[in-house]
Amino acid sequence: MTSRLLHEENGLKTLVVVFDKGEEVRQVLLQFAGEHHIASAHLAAIGAFCRVLLGFFDRQLKDYEKISIDEQVELLSFNGNIAEFNGKPKLHAHVVVGKRDGTAHGGHLLEGHVWPTVEMIITETPQHLRRVQDEETGLALIAPQAV
Amino acid sequence: MTSRLLHEENGLKTLVVVFDKGEEVRQVLLQFAGEHHIASAHLAAIGAFCRVLLGFFDRQLKDYEKISIDEQVELLSFNGNIAEFNGKPKLHAHVVVGKRDGTAHGGHLLEGHVWPTVEMIITETPQHLRRVQDEETGLALIAPQAV
Amino acid sequence: MTSRLLHEENGLKTLVVVFDKGEEVRQVLLQFAGEHHIASAHLAAIGAFCRVLLGFFDRQLKDYEKISIDEQVELLSFNGNIAEFNGKPKLHAHVVVGKRDGTAHGGHLLEGHVWPTVEMIITETPQHLRRVQDEETGLALIAPQAV
Repeated sequence: MTSRLLHEENGLKTLVVVFDKGEEVRQVLLQFAGEHHIASAHLAAIGAFCRVLLGFFDRQLKDYEKISIDEQVELLSFNGNIAEFNGKPKLHAHVVVGKRDGTAHGGHLLEGHVWPTVEMIITETPQHLRRVQDEETGLALIAPQAV
Repeated sequence: MTSRLLHEENGLKTLVVVFDKGEEVRQVLLQFAGEHHIASAHLAAIGAFCRVLLGFFDRQLKDYEKISIDEQVELLSFNGNIAEFNGKPKLHAHVVVGKRDGTAHGGHLLEGHVWPTVEMIITETPQHLRRVQDEETGLALIAPQAV
Repeated sequence: MTSRLLHEENGLKTLVVVFDKGEEVRQVLLQFAGEHHIASAHLAAIGAFCRVLLGFFDRQLKDYEKISIDEQVELLSFNGNIAEFNGKPKLHAHVVVGKRDGTAHGGHLLEGHVWPTVEMIITETPQHLRRVQDEETGLALIAPQAV
C-alpha cells in the first residue's frame, strides 16, 4: 500500500491510497488509520478483488449473514467512513462488485482481497465522528452529536 | 435525524447527516435542505432500508416506471445532488441496494425507508445550481450556466 | 456539455459537468480534461445512458472482456479518477447501471452514451497523480509516490 496527501486546508485532508496485490482492504486500511490518527473520514474507491466476503444484516440474528464471492470481480463502488468507536478507528463500508457476466452484487464489506489494485480517495475531516452502541440492533451507529 | 457540520471553508461545507429508523430519506432530506437553505450540494450515503421505491425513466411515457422492493436491503451506494428548481431545493438521487442473496438492484430514488440507519455526507457548495425544464423529456435537468 | 466551477480554494477545485444527449462520456471528458489541464481529479456522477460498453479484466488475456448493454439504463453510480499517464490525462472509471427490471449491472467504463443527461462532480487536486505501467498485468496503475 502506498499513499499521498493530495491537499490539506484548515484540517480537511484529501489523501490517495493505492492498495497492492494480495492486500486485504479492511485490515490494511485500519492499520493506516491507526498510524495516521484518522478518526473521522469518508472514503470512495474503485479497483478489483480476487475474493470478497460480504455481509447482509439479519434483523432476527442481529448479525451479518455472510455472502462469499470467491472469484475475480471488478470493484464498482466502495463507499464508507471511518469513525471512532471505543477510542479506536472503526470502518463501515459497503461495496458493489461486478462479475464476468456484468451482473452486480454487493453488501457490507467484511473482507476484500485486492488484485491487481484498489484506488481510494480518503477525505479526512477535523471534527471527530463517534459511534455509539444501539441497543435494539447491537450495531455501533454514528451519533453526530457525540463529542 | 441528527446532523453536524464537519468543516466549513470559504462557503464550502461538509456535513454529516444520520437518518433514524422509520424515516423516509427524501422527505427528511428536503425538509433539512429547506431549513438550512441548502440550494446546491452533492450527496453520498450508505446504510440500510426496510423498503424502497425506485424509478426507471421510460422514454415513451416521459415518466418513471415504479420498481418496489418491499424487503430489508443494504444501501450500497447513494449518489445524488440538491439543486434549485422553481426556487425550491430539488433532490436527484440514484441508489444501489443489495438483497439477502447478495444481488444488487437500483434506480432513481423515489422513497427510501430507513432501518436501522443511513449515514450521509453532504458537500454544500456556495455557487447555486439550478434546474431547467427540458422540453423533450419533461425532466428538470441541471443547467450549469443558469444563474 | 456544459460546466461550471463551483468552488476553488488553494488549488482544490470543485466543478460540475453536465453531459448532453448523444454525447459519449469518456471522449467528452478527456477532451474537457485536456482543455482545462486537469491532471489529477476524482469523479462522481449519476444520470442515464441509452447504451453502454463495459469491460471485465481477464487475468489470462491481460485485457478487458467486453460487455455490451444496448438499452436504456439508469446510471446508478459512476466512480473514477483522472491521472497522468505518459504526459496525458487518463480516465479510470467504474459504473453501475440499472435496467428496467431494477437489476444492477456494471464494470469498467469503455463507452457511455448519454441520454438524456449525466450530472458529474469533478474534484480536482493540485498535486498530480501519475500512472505507471505494471509489468504483470500490462495495466497502468496509480503510483502515488511518482512525481
